[in-house]
Amino acid sequence: MVTTRLRVIYGDTDQMGVVYYANYLRYFEASRNEYLRARGLRYRDFEERFGLALPVAEAGVSYKQPARYDDLLDVEASVVDVRRASATFEYRVLRGGELIATGRTVHACVDLDGRLRRLPPELVEKLTRGAAAPDSPAP
Amino acid sequence: MVTTRLRVIYGDTDQMGVVYYANYLRYFEASRNEYLRARGLRYRDFEERFGLALPVAEAGVSYKQPARYDDLLDVEASVVDVRRASATFEYRVLRGGELIATGRTVHACVDLDGRLRRLPPELVEKLTRGAAAPDSPAP
Amino acid sequence: MVTTRLRVIYGDTDQMGVVYYANYLRYFEASRNEYLRARGLRYRDFEERFGLALPVAEAGVSYKQPARYDDLLDVEASVVDVRRASATFEYRVLRGGELIATGRTVHACVDLDGRLRRLPPELVEKLTRGAAAPDSPAP
Amino acid sequence: MVTTRLRVIYGDTDQMGVVYYANYLRYFEASRNEYLRARGLRYRDFEERFGLALPVAEAGVSYKQPARYDDLLDVEASVVDVRRASATFEYRVLRGGELIATGRTVHACVDLDGRLRRLPPELVEKLTRGAAAPDSPAP
Repeated sequence: MVTTRLRVIYGDTDQMGVVYYANYLRYFEASRNEYLRARGLRYRDFEERFGLALPVAEAGVSYKQPARYDDLLDVEASVVDVRRASATFEYRVLRGGELIATGRTVHACVDLDGRLRRLPPELVEKLTRGAAAPDSPAP
Repeated sequence: MVTTRLRVIYGDTDQMGVVYYANYLRYFEASRNEYLRARGLRYRDFEERFGLALPVAEAGVSYKQPARYDDLLDVEASVVDVRRASATFEYRVLRGGELIATGRTVHACVDLDGRLRRLPPELVEKLTRGAAAPDSPAP
Repeated sequence: MVTTRLRVIYGDTDQMGVVYYANYLRYFEASRNEYLRARGLRYRDFEERFGLALPVAEAGVSYKQPARYDDLLDVEASVVDVRRASATFEYRVLRGGELIATGRTVHACVDLDGRLRRLPPELVEKLTRGAAAPDSPAP
Repeated sequence: MVTTRLRVIYGDTDQMGVVYYANYLRYFEASRNEYLRARGLRYRDFEERFGLALPVAEAGVSYKQPARYDDLLDVEASVVDVRRASATFEYRVLRGGELIATGRTVHACVDLDGRLRRLPPELVEKLTRGAAAPDSPAP
């Protein structure tokens, strides 16, 4: 699990005075990028080194509490499932200890022509490394 | 079911050359507004006339085919479920006859202090009118 | 001059209850696209047919009156200047007869490697046609 | 002058592979907020403590070099002019030492009914403190 800290700006809010619902998917993307970076990957690498992309096939959000302008949000990302040609991320958005939202995205692995491709073992290993023993070396 | 036509702008796309995944929730909102307007409601009315809001409690999207810059998209919205204090919308995004994405949003009915409230019968009636006999008079 | 009609959605507003200032540049882009379309061009064509792009070099907005959720806005676009390798658009955003904002964008003409290029005569002709005799057939 | 570091996400880019032009105004807002925070103000305070708002009256951007996905951008904000009822910010967006964009916003000072108001001396003092001797105590 990797945590990304974000500050809510005016442009993220709507006239109800809370973060507009679509913007949580932006927050998820930011935290997904940081998850990959913490695993020694950058999303860029998928495209440049592997000739692969990970487009979103499914996305979902559960809104628990409104987030507001100027809030500092912690977005936790983790990979909860990796299959032959897809990977699933889950997210939790927190403000201090309070749960603001949860979500998940399912990503297909495709080549640059959009054809489904097997996730290379190197990527699978990096994506899931943290899952069993998060962020820590084996004893 | 109510259909809203939208034109994809550059600002909706990302560097993969397709509509960024969060923007579908904006399209859903636009089509939800038009659904309400077609039922003689405006989202404004919830706030101004009834002192109620319909914040999104859950949102989900299934991405089927990428949408691209300058595409004309038809977004169909319908109400598929109305409960005591919530309502569920479903959406289909089409380009010509091709299905681009589907989605749904679940909305809580709350007062302006954020407390859950029963949906007034007048709103229930308007929201669901089209459901049984969509857009057509009874025989 | 070409006019594009847009409906303000919740996602365009901020917690001050008005359209967020950055979104006017989105409205300008939408109206610029429609300007080009009305001239028999599509922005797509620049890239696909001419191998050219028109990136924005300068943008400016004057905010006169706030626009609000559910407003119907008319965005007028016109080309006010075309030079060897640049073109300038101006915009007026109106709600009914009321002036909401004005703006302008200056676009460089570049090839797909980003080098400045002369605007082809065919494009100059189409971009400026409406300027002399806006939207009306010759007698 | 106060510097804010931002990471470009996919959602900020467009299909040209660069940051969409409207998003610079979002970056400016983020850096403006941090400027105020560094001066012991929060934009929130304007509204809550002073009953004032600082809506944008004018905004402008000069685009020098494209910014791209995953870039780390430093956005510098400074107040360059404070008048009776307005304040002007200037911005520079840098990637490493390279200048990506510059911009400015002019803000009116209004009360919560939208009427122009004199900037309170306490705000003027805080906004301009850094201007003469940026971020450093007098000798």
